[in-house]
Amino acid sequence: MAQRKIGIIGVGKIAVDQHIPAIRASADWDLHATANLVPVPVDGVAHTLTDYHDLLANADIEAVAICTPPQVRHRIARQAIAAGKHVLIEKPPAASLSALVDLSHAARSAGVTLFTAWHSQYNKAVDAAVAELANSAIKRLKITWKEDVRHWHPGQTWIWRAGGFGVFDPGINALSIITRILPQPLFVTAANLAFPSNCDSPIAAELSFASAAGEPGEEMSAVFDFRQTGPQSWDIDIETFDGRSLLLSSGGTKLAINGTSVIDAAPAEYPAMYARFADLIASRASLVDDGPFRLVADAFMLGRRTLVEPFYD
Amino acid sequence: MAQRKIGIIGVGKIAVDQHIPAIRASADWDLHATANLVPVPVDGVAHTLTDYHDLLANADIEAVAICTPPQVRHRIARQAIAAGKHVLIEKPPAASLSALVDLSHAARSAGVTLFTAWHSQYNKAVDAAVAELANSAIKRLKITWKEDVRHWHPGQTWIWRAGGFGVFDPGINALSIITRILPQPLFVTAANLAFPSNCDSPIAAELSFASAAGEPGEEMSAVFDFRQTGPQSWDIDIETFDGRSLLLSSGGTKLAINGTSVIDAAPAEYPAMYARFADLIASRASLVDDGPFRLVADAFMLGRRTLVEPFYD
Repeated sequence: MAQRKIGIIGVGKIAVDQHIPAIRASADWDLHATANLVPVPVDGVAHTLTDYHDLLANADIEAVAICTPPQVRHRIARQAIAAGKHVLIEKPPAASLSALVDLSHAARSAGVTLFTAWHSQYNKAVDAAVAELANSAIKRLKITWKEDVRHWHPGQTWIWRAGGFGVFDPGINALSIITRILPQPLFVTAANLAFPSNCDSPIAAELSFASAAGEPGEEMSAVFDFRQTGPQSWDIDIETFDGRSLLLSSGGTKLAINGTSVIDAAPAEYPAMYARFADLIASRASLVDDGPFRLVADAFMLGRRTLVEPFYD
Repeated sequence: MAQRKIGIIGVGKIAVDQHIPAIRASADWDLHATANLVPVPVDGVAHTLTDYHDLLANADIEAVAICTPPQVRHRIARQAIAAGKHVLIEKPPAASLSALVDLSHAARSAGVTLFTAWHSQYNKAVDAAVAELANSAIKRLKITWKEDVRHWHPGQTWIWRAGGFGVFDPGINALSIITRILPQPLFVTAANLAFPSNCDSPIAAELSFASAAGEPGEEMSAVFDFRQTGPQSWDIDIETFDGRSLLLSSGGTKLAINGTSVIDAAPAEYPAMYARFADLIASRASLVDDGPFRLVADAFMLGRRTLVEPFYD
């Protein structure tokens, strides 16, 4: 099959670290152009653009990956859909749920593929957890997502602005894993959100969940923290009512069942994600998963806010 | 047609002021039972219960109206659906969007009617605005929803708790009107939320919107305020790009077009809403409108928080 020409809009850290290598390593894709306010030349890429309108105007380009900060994703995605491009959107897929719903309608009307790319859903250990938990009732769920924001998000000032999501930017990855692996929907019942006194988004959060069934004795919670120095934690710890335990660790790349490691793979999320994008286009389908995003919006809507010490990058 | 037997769960101010009179005045309905932690006897109602489980266990009751505070609506609605009852839920329909999505799925599986009752959508002036704005492009939208919380929500401490919605409890009525009357979806692009220093929900809010189309020159905003003494404002002011103006005032009961009053009706929301509920059941349909709720969740997710002076009821 011929490679599909793709363009990347917004060439920041995530595009450089993940999207560009995944696209270039894939037989499905040809990275044909990039667009970024400050031009970012990439070896072998035909067009290095600064105005994404020029990228959208290029008829050779069949698909785009939108990797800008979330605040501008809707506008760009709307224009890309109107230009007839298939669209992959980095997580979170828009600045608001209502904007995502609008994109979903727009893509359906235009007959193009829209793909909400929750990258953490694309590890083998996550696939294995889905299989292991099918038809299980979950007794205990504990998400621990603690990382050093200065290391992973250096100078990303947009993350601290209102609508920048703060610690939910990584935390939504954990939520995207649990919405994929749990056999029953769950939802936020309470949240505590810690806002630095000089920031408009939270640096830490604690969430309580309930399953839709509301099983007596279930305990489900998450803790997200951007202030973790030293060892970093991206763990999901699960116990079922029938006595099994699962530990998904290292951001969903390792899985242990009842204390025994069953998968310990290098992260390979983005290649699997781009393979899925190609499959979706080939089958003329969209995949718009708003579940993780809805949980975040619910946490903000339900959350108690506390002020904590100011944050300086 | 025989009257359908209905029960009310949660007999607080809104049930007494609106639901009970609307049901009793209707030929469609027979108010057969109420359930409230503190019993609330109503003339001619067969069963005055304290435990809603007893109401759900009554096989004569075909439908329930859930008028409790939002925090417990999901659990009760789930049980009502499981008991085979048709369910009307006061606004907001759940404590979280994810819980509402779950109810929607549960009702579909059970084959019962679920009706998210956004009462402000059921005025004649709102119907007339829908017709007037069909196919219009909106240049200006200004929502002004200012009321005295001490007068309208006396002692309703739940409204100030996290998840109690604060000023969005009335504000969501305005949002439910605009999602009904605007020909294009709109969404929140920014928000300022004013939290009293001793409360976990906002006492005032300013929202900015954009239309999905993002017309150049459009200006759309809302201001909600719970601190309004003297004259109260529940107004929606609209100007179209083709030069017409609409003023929906008094909470959607009055409509003026280009300065001329065209409708000035007494509020008749709840009777129209209960008529709709009966129609939905007869046609075996649900009406789950999550649009207004999504805008609120988006406002909390995107909003900047500011602290204002403490509130004492």
